[in-house]
Amino acid sequence: MGPRRPLPARVPLRALLLAAALRGAAGALPGALPSFVVLLADDLGFGDLGSYGHPSSATPNLDRMASRGLRFTSFYSSAPVCSPSRAALLTGRFQMRSGVYPGVFDPDSRGGLPLSEVTVAEVLKAKGYATAMVGKWHLGVGINGSFLPIHQGFDHFLGVPYSHDQGPCQNLTCFPPDTKCFGTCDQNLVPVPLLWNQSIVQQPVSFPDLVPLYNKFSRDFIADCAQRGLPFLLYYASHHTHYPQFASQEYAGQSQRGPFGDALSEFDGSVGQLLQALQENGLLNTTLVFFTSDNGPSTMRMARGGSSGLLRCGKGTTYEGGMREPAVAYWPGHITPGVTHELASTLDILPTLTALAGAALPSVTLDGYDLSPVLFGSGKSPRQTMFFYPPSPDPLHGPFAVRLGKYKAHYFTQGSFHSDTTPDQACHGLTPLTHHVPPLLFDLESDPAENYDLLQSAAGPEIWQVLKDIKLEKMLFEQHMEFGESQIRKGRDPALQPCCVPNCTPKPSCCHCS
Amino acid sequence: MGPRRPLPARVPLRALLLAAALRGAAGALPGALPSFVVLLADDLGFGDLGSYGHPSSATPNLDRMASRGLRFTSFYSSAPVCSPSRAALLTGRFQMRSGVYPGVFDPDSRGGLPLSEVTVAEVLKAKGYATAMVGKWHLGVGINGSFLPIHQGFDHFLGVPYSHDQGPCQNLTCFPPDTKCFGTCDQNLVPVPLLWNQSIVQQPVSFPDLVPLYNKFSRDFIADCAQRGLPFLLYYASHHTHYPQFASQEYAGQSQRGPFGDALSEFDGSVGQLLQALQENGLLNTTLVFFTSDNGPSTMRMARGGSSGLLRCGKGTTYEGGMREPAVAYWPGHITPGVTHELASTLDILPTLTALAGAALPSVTLDGYDLSPVLFGSGKSPRQTMFFYPPSPDPLHGPFAVRLGKYKAHYFTQGSFHSDTTPDQACHGLTPLTHHVPPLLFDLESDPAENYDLLQSAAGPEIWQVLKDIKLEKMLFEQHMEFGESQIRKGRDPALQPCCVPNCTPKPSCCHCS
Repeated sequence: MGPRRPLPARVPLRALLLAAALRGAAGALPGALPSFVVLLADDLGFGDLGSYGHPSSATPNLDRMASRGLRFTSFYSSAPVCSPSRAALLTGRFQMRSGVYPGVFDPDSRGGLPLSEVTVAEVLKAKGYATAMVGKWHLGVGINGSFLPIHQGFDHFLGVPYSHDQGPCQNLTCFPPDTKCFGTCDQNLVPVPLLWNQSIVQQPVSFPDLVPLYNKFSRDFIADCAQRGLPFLLYYASHHTHYPQFASQEYAGQSQRGPFGDALSEFDGSVGQLLQALQENGLLNTTLVFFTSDNGPSTMRMARGGSSGLLRCGKGTTYEGGMREPAVAYWPGHITPGVTHELASTLDILPTLTALAGAALPSVTLDGYDLSPVLFGSGKSPRQTMFFYPPSPDPLHGPFAVRLGKYKAHYFTQGSFHSDTTPDQACHGLTPLTHHVPPLLFDLESDPAENYDLLQSAAGPEIWQVLKDIKLEKMLFEQHMEFGESQIRKGRDPALQPCCVPNCTPKPSCCHCS
Repeated sequence: MGPRRPLPARVPLRALLLAAALRGAAGALPGALPSFVVLLADDLGFGDLGSYGHPSSATPNLDRMASRGLRFTSFYSSAPVCSPSRAALLTGRFQMRSGVYPGVFDPDSRGGLPLSEVTVAEVLKAKGYATAMVGKWHLGVGINGSFLPIHQGFDHFLGVPYSHDQGPCQNLTCFPPDTKCFGTCDQNLVPVPLLWNQSIVQQPVSFPDLVPLYNKFSRDFIADCAQRGLPFLLYYASHHTHYPQFASQEYAGQSQRGPFGDALSEFDGSVGQLLQALQENGLLNTTLVFFTSDNGPSTMRMARGGSSGLLRCGKGTTYEGGMREPAVAYWPGHITPGVTHELASTLDILPTLTALAGAALPSVTLDGYDLSPVLFGSGKSPRQTMFFYPPSPDPLHGPFAVRLGKYKAHYFTQGSFHSDTTPDQACHGLTPLTHHVPPLLFDLESDPAENYDLLQSAAGPEIWQVLKDIKLEKMLFEQHMEFGESQIRKGRDPALQPCCVPNCTPKPSCCHCS
């Protein structure tokens, strides 16, 4: 699927959204096929929901989903930062295979998730599903929008092509208040655009109005699919709770947790709206709703960052806080409510949805497993291992850490600026890459906080055997790991930044269309 | 209430328990009076239950109580260590008033909770309640057992008079395995005795058999009260999950979390048994069950210690991890299920139960509030402040920290050996007493982990006003705080240690009666 057409200069938002007759898939299919809603939060930590122990979060809809669905306690994203994590979720493959490394895409990146990759949307579309994506893409824009979601299997896309902080500050409040934006906010960047498919419908995005727009789009999509009897995939990738936080009028200033809490509340409210839309359209019992987050909390944002709860460190690290995520599978009448400690990952979403849809798996190497046994069957996960790669993976290093069953071995550790400001120096950006020989070894069941290296105490032979087993798993895995050409090292080209007035001057500030 | 009679030398356990016709209170009272079960865990941290976010705990009964009851997220014990916390729970008064400071009682302490103190058991007993205590007392033994529970309003007592590690090691497993016991384990101490009222019924305690005994005693008490139509108070103070952990055969080795998890599971199972006993006796709708813990986790025990979740530090400190506790109020049909972020404390248990029983409050200065509005009414707590005293409080220092609404100011901080081995050095035993001028100030709602001192950033006038308000509350509080004579500074007398063979030699090792 190559690029379709250039990004049009400017499309009136209202006209487009009102006129949008949602395009369905080619042909209607048996009603027995389940639909899927994949809800992805942004930089939300393991400890950020009420149902995961946060004392001042108010997340009633997610908590209800958790109590009436299956709540995971050992669910992992594939990467501790955004773009690679999303690439893996959509493809069922570690980000190195698709070249989504090192780090994340910039607004003017030349690369993107290669079109040769097969996404879950493409898998389901081939089976007749209607597909839509709402929210944050962050897998490249490319020349004329060639990397955007509609080239990756999504019939519809309403959203922002990268992180919403990857623009000039736009008066978004920072913490502490009145300080300048930091992080990737950059006056050389164009204002953040809102795209509808490949068209810019607003630039800069009006953040307080954004989520209501997303929700209306999502509800309309659900209603349309219901009306047409089409199974569907809705990939709802919220900007919440990524810094800098925003919220619509309904939520701003309403939470106990400040701007982070407001953003979280708006996300939670959106979840409530989507579930209500499913119910109103009689789809609650035919739709699997899956919620998780892309990576751990950005504690460098201090009280504006999230919390990994009892887990060590957060975003950017291969400690548990960087990649273990809250996750809930919700499907009334199909999934028995409960809590599972079984291993699972965003990598497993594609294989699971593919199996449920009776679709064909892509004929490529996959790193995910069909989680059906966990969701509906024995409760046992086919996943026994998890591999932890840093934001800048390197074939020479291999995975920084490997989990096998309850044990996790760290061969390398490194801090990350994303995990600054906590009392634990191991998390911080200035803590250098450290090679551990022997590795650090933790029992994640009795020591989920990764505080007590089992090899530091008098380790018995069974512990050394564990280490051998992990080493073997690591070797077998690395033998089949191929690093694709880095899409991010293709570099940047300022001309690639989406601008609603292509020929205006002076760029980038002139790219304004309300 | 003075001492009754000397501790008898040796009483056969089976005979006593079987023969025990449970003594009821003086006269039956209107059936409308509610009964109370107060469940107290030991060294269980804020983050240790599944419902409080722990990823590998299995606490189905407590979690069910939490989901069907009112779960607190800002509930505090009155002290970060055991004896003072229990003194305050039973009296509704800060431990300094009753002299239960500094630290905790030893097996041979001369002092105890003064008999002049009025406990919740005495308040309810005066109203005709049957009262019983099971488990860990830790408020003194005294000459001839004069400080034991039956002199503080409890009709019945089956339990251990102090911490179960305050004896010689008795082959309890330590962590790492095969290391010697540490902490207060002391070969000069007598084996830990099990008391029935004032009599030693077993010495040393057979730990694997202990909890089933407690549960049988509790179920019998509940059934007896039901049969006699008596309202009752059952104070079930578990030894779980204090180090060194133990568990009966049913639970040993069964949990994911190792010995800590086994102990927690056994506690959770006991909760299930008690709730079942209430149900079987038709008392579920007339009984308020309240669960909490005495203080934060003992992280010096490493993987054998608990977790304060996202909170800072643990046992022994006045950071949140030392005193914020999991807490659930459960009363089907009376308490609406939900989560409350309102402030509450173990100090509030006496006033609340007193109000519910329509009993008279003790005519002494109380530090607790009637929580009825939180449980049944507006949802708003009458408690707006919490005061945090260290294990060794000093009138010259006053409270180390004060919480007012969502803000907490630390005037002093100090580490504790109980909170060793975490990555946060502020928690550790070698971190000295530090006076903070101005205090450290945290917003506990947006920053429950106490990482970001509001006075370190550009604090606006509203923040300085908060500080003034807190200072005023602190002054008003201190004006009415009277330190009673220290019971713990009365010292120790080895002859006071309970021994089932009073005249045996060589002591203490000869004090054995199975």
